[in-house]
Amino acid sequence: MKKHIITLAGDGIGPEIMNSAQALLKAAGEKYKHEFTTEAKDIGGIAIDTHNNPLPDETIEACEAADAILLGAVGGPKWADSVIRPEQGLLKIRKHFNLFANLRPVTIFDSLEASSPLKQEIVHGSDLMIVRELTGGLYFGEPSERRDGGQSVIDSLTYTHDEIERIVRTAFDTAMTRRKHLTSVDKANVLESSRMWREIVNTVGKEYPEVTVEHELVDAAAMKLITNPSYFDVIVTENLFGDILSDEASVITGSLGVLPSASLSENGLGLFEPIHGSAPDIAGENKANPIGMMLSVGMMFKYSFGLHEESAAIERAVNTVLKQGFKTPDLKIDGAETISTTEMTEKIISNL
Amino acid sequence: MKKHIITLAGDGIGPEIMNSAQALLKAAGEKYKHEFTTEAKDIGGIAIDTHNNPLPDETIEACEAADAILLGAVGGPKWADSVIRPEQGLLKIRKHFNLFANLRPVTIFDSLEASSPLKQEIVHGSDLMIVRELTGGLYFGEPSERRDGGQSVIDSLTYTHDEIERIVRTAFDTAMTRRKHLTSVDKANVLESSRMWREIVNTVGKEYPEVTVEHELVDAAAMKLITNPSYFDVIVTENLFGDILSDEASVITGSLGVLPSASLSENGLGLFEPIHGSAPDIAGENKANPIGMMLSVGMMFKYSFGLHEESAAIERAVNTVLKQGFKTPDLKIDGAETISTTEMTEKIISNL
Ligand SMILES: CC(C)[C@H](C(=O)O)[C@@H](O)C(=O)O
Ligand SMILES: CC(C)[C@H](C(=O)O)[C@@H](O)C(=O)O
Repeated sequence: MKKHIITLAGDGIGPEIMNSAQALLKAAGEKYKHEFTTEAKDIGGIAIDTHNNPLPDETIEACEAADAILLGAVGGPKWADSVIRPEQGLLKIRKHFNLFANLRPVTIFDSLEASSPLKQEIVHGSDLMIVRELTGGLYFGEPSERRDGGQSVIDSLTYTHDEIERIVRTAFDTAMTRRKHLTSVDKANVLESSRMWREIVNTVGKEYPEVTVEHELVDAAAMKLITNPSYFDVIVTENLFGDILSDEASVITGSLGVLPSASLSENGLGLFEPIHGSAPDIAGENKANPIGMMLSVGMMFKYSFGLHEESAAIERAVNTVLKQGFKTPDLKIDGAETISTTEMTEKIISNL
Repeated sequence: MKKHIITLAGDGIGPEIMNSAQALLKAAGEKYKHEFTTEAKDIGGIAIDTHNNPLPDETIEACEAADAILLGAVGGPKWADSVIRPEQGLLKIRKHFNLFANLRPVTIFDSLEASSPLKQEIVHGSDLMIVRELTGGLYFGEPSERRDGGQSVIDSLTYTHDEIERIVRTAFDTAMTRRKHLTSVDKANVLESSRMWREIVNTVGKEYPEVTVEHELVDAAAMKLITNPSYFDVIVTENLFGDILSDEASVITGSLGVLPSASLSENGLGLFEPIHGSAPDIAGENKANPIGMMLSVGMMFKYSFGLHEESAAIERAVNTVLKQGFKTPDLKIDGAETISTTEMTEKIISNL
């Protein structure tokens, strides 16, 4: 298989973990006889510095010609007061490529279970997937502006029927490949958009009789994620609820640094990134955890290239290295040896 | 002191816990020489049944003439498919009386610390207050409707400058009575309303030089509430973020049933209710935990009547009874004896 991948390293620890992704691509390509070519482009803060634009045209053009996109992280204190913000690059690329389906698996690695802020008996066995709508809702709705000379303000939560239907279908399809239990999260006791969401989930659900569907209010879901995380299989929700709940859910694993994500469009193009941020405090110190990035490469293999075996091999390699007793400084594993970004990368690759 | 209080028992366990509130009012009135008169009115599901209106006019009129309002809980499966929903009564009463400031203290009682889903060393010492804006934002913004013959939908997140300023002031004033640390939660990297919110917090903050102010994005706050709850003192946020975060925060205490809330207006009228729901599964069984309701009476004493000593006495009595080793079925305290709603109520009252 021949694939061309754009790498958007971005800011902070982005470049370091992108090196890990590159090394992984090279090794996996050799082992499984694929030709992966990569091309680096700018996004986020670095792109503001070099192009005065968090998503330069040449980045867009390169991505248009690619088979997949890998992203490190964007943002940092350097651009805190900048008029153009690094995150705008991320929001724009999502919208431009119609990356409407954000898949965020929240898996508890056995060796990390004890490092959760939750009691071990509560997190044990948790394995859920958040399917977050990524290109609609309050993030992109118009109007979004000050009014009355600054005396009032409005943001708009807008969705079309089709936008809701396609993410709901993605969620049902995802549930079919898992434990067939779908929790749709909304605020239907208050929002009209949530009532429409609920109706569409019920209608689409008729085509998936094998999937058990439940509706949960977002406030109740925020509780249940803590009291009973292993209850969930697939969660589907709109953009902002998904933002909040997926960050909340990720932290119960005690291991933000190991979680990947996929953002997919209808035509198959996908963007893959770890869920953690740019961690400017440790940038350049060879301390960053490359696992979230490397598992994102695994999601790219699976979701964009259909390379299931290769994807599973990466997950297995990560698990093996953690079980062997190695960790990066962000992980809390009793008795494990702390190693650097590059060492962790090498160990995972050598276990492929 | 003479005070007239409207009791809105509502649905499910509402009537039972309202009996506890009544008993507490009687006892506290006798002990501290106050004359508390009460008058029961309907709200929620029961009001739909009796008046075909979740907030009947006679309830509004009675509340208008009262010094404070106590509320039990609204809603239940009986009205799940009803066109008019019980919660509308709650939303309407908040809006009608301009109850813009929702105060939700999240305190960890020593005896309940072990029952948190979080590790004890993480929850230990947590004591935070969420100040949630309650009458603006997506809950009440217009337009909120289907469009294009049902092909699209919009909800509006609207705020005026004054609405933001008054809740922010309430939060700063609250911080001044506590540890003087205020965390303002928004999504300023995406929402225009959040950027305006942040500006107002910074402006008002200049009048409170003693208060340390921080801004936190809602997704980051949802994480930190779990990884480091004791970090927070006062959190201020808009309506929907407050809904999600306060439910999330309450559950880390392991004791939803013991948490009270106050919803205050500018003219001093307040509505006080436990944060738990109507628990229809145990309604009528004398099993409900009356503590959230009784501590809500305590918040009424403090915030509406200025009766600080009486309020503190209720908190102390609750603490004493829990330490004596008594609990209701919802609480997990090793070795404690399970008692009924009425027994718990009596024990707390006898410890006043
Ligand atoms: C950086 C920010 C705009 C973004 C979001 O809110 O979507 C981030 O929090 C995420 O979840 O990817
Ligand atoms: C019942 C519902 C409308 C309400 C809300 O969302 O405000 C409840 O969740 C609350 O927090 O008091």
